[in-house]
Amino acid sequence: MSMEANHPYVPRDLKLPGYEPVFLSQSTILAVYGAASLLVVSLMWLLSGRIHKISKVDRILMCWWIFTGLTHIILEGYFAFTPDFYKVNTPHYLAEVWKEYSKGDSRYVGRDSAVVAVEGITAAIEGPACLLVVYAIAKKKSYSYVLQLSICLGQLYGCLVYFATAILEGDNFATSMFYYYAYYVFANMWWVFIPGAIAARCWKKICAGCHVQEQKKSKTR
Amino acid sequence: MSMEANHPYVPRDLKLPGYEPVFLSQSTILAVYGAASLLVVSLMWLLSGRIHKISKVDRILMCWWIFTGLTHIILEGYFAFTPDFYKVNTPHYLAEVWKEYSKGDSRYVGRDSAVVAVEGITAAIEGPACLLVVYAIAKKKSYSYVLQLSICLGQLYGCLVYFATAILEGDNFATSMFYYYAYYVFANMWWVFIPGAIAARCWKKICAGCHVQEQKKSKTR
Repeated sequence: MSMEANHPYVPRDLKLPGYEPVFLSQSTILAVYGAASLLVVSLMWLLSGRIHKISKVDRILMCWWIFTGLTHIILEGYFAFTPDFYKVNTPHYLAEVWKEYSKGDSRYVGRDSAVVAVEGITAAIEGPACLLVVYAIAKKKSYSYVLQLSICLGQLYGCLVYFATAILEGDNFATSMFYYYAYYVFANMWWVFIPGAIAARCWKKICAGCHVQEQKKSKTR
Repeated sequence: MSMEANHPYVPRDLKLPGYEPVFLSQSTILAVYGAASLLVVSLMWLLSGRIHKISKVDRILMCWWIFTGLTHIILEGYFAFTPDFYKVNTPHYLAEVWKEYSKGDSRYVGRDSAVVAVEGITAAIEGPACLLVVYAIAKKKSYSYVLQLSICLGQLYGCLVYFATAILEGDNFATSMFYYYAYYVFANMWWVFIPGAIAARCWKKICAGCHVQEQKKSKTR
């Protein structure tokens, strides 16, 4: 077949029957995500200020967890459970997001099984768990640190599988260098560094807790 | 092409140029793994008995961690970093293991990127961490529980990706129903249930620790 591919993605021989082009501009898609996130984070900041004796760090963490949780559930959940999003022929915002993001990694539109598995786990397990963290921090639950650590390790494992499978499959899924760095590298980077930092913090807190427990045990012996 | 496949794996159209058949029998392969594991576990049981005031549960856990750690590093490490194991034309034990196991899941011999990524993470990160747990339990380190929990979550995440990608790719990688259940289901099952149980135990211990820390904080205020 000498027919031109009907889509903008790389590799060019990727078959996407029924593909409908992106309707919204890149700036519109980013602006909606940015504005919605800013709204959610601002509301969380204001609400968390009313909690008795809460630290600034915990308030910032609540903002992060509500943001990442809703991103996992809404954005990634839509992708994981909507195999035909690239055929959507109306300007459906969530379909537009993934048509646009696929310019940085065509494995999304191509439905690579590793990507779908990781996104499915992220959306169905980690997403709701992030919202539980918001509640756990607000209510100062004893499982707060261990839950945060567990989700962070899940996010880091997911990123590792995501990047490792891309490299193993040839790392040739971006429409251009711009999309490679802007979407594939830059957008995902935050889910490496922030969970890494939170995991390290929780690890220390937990070790301190277990250390205190040991001391208490020794004393009561 | 009407040529017969030169290998016993499913799907039959899988291309494996230079494939060399298994030399050792199934029972030999299993017996060597069983005997080596029994030796390691017995030695660990004896050695751990000499540790001052150690519980039976911790001794059993040390046996599990040394067994699973060495399995990750040696068996899975060999697979992850030896792409051409199926071409090995001498009875190399580790190559034989994976030629045999591939009858239950041909994605191993076919070098599926999700399988290679998960096995690589398991061998390079989780394997050494398992050996560190053995040391941490023996020395009663405060990071013992949180390290065990972290590895268990990694093992569970790995199994989830492993099974989810198989289902997404059609779940048709076993030579027969026997190999499907014996290798793919039964052999992997242990790395779901045991890490699940250890994770639950560590979670409770950590929450108790963090709870004690909270109480101590309140008292010293």
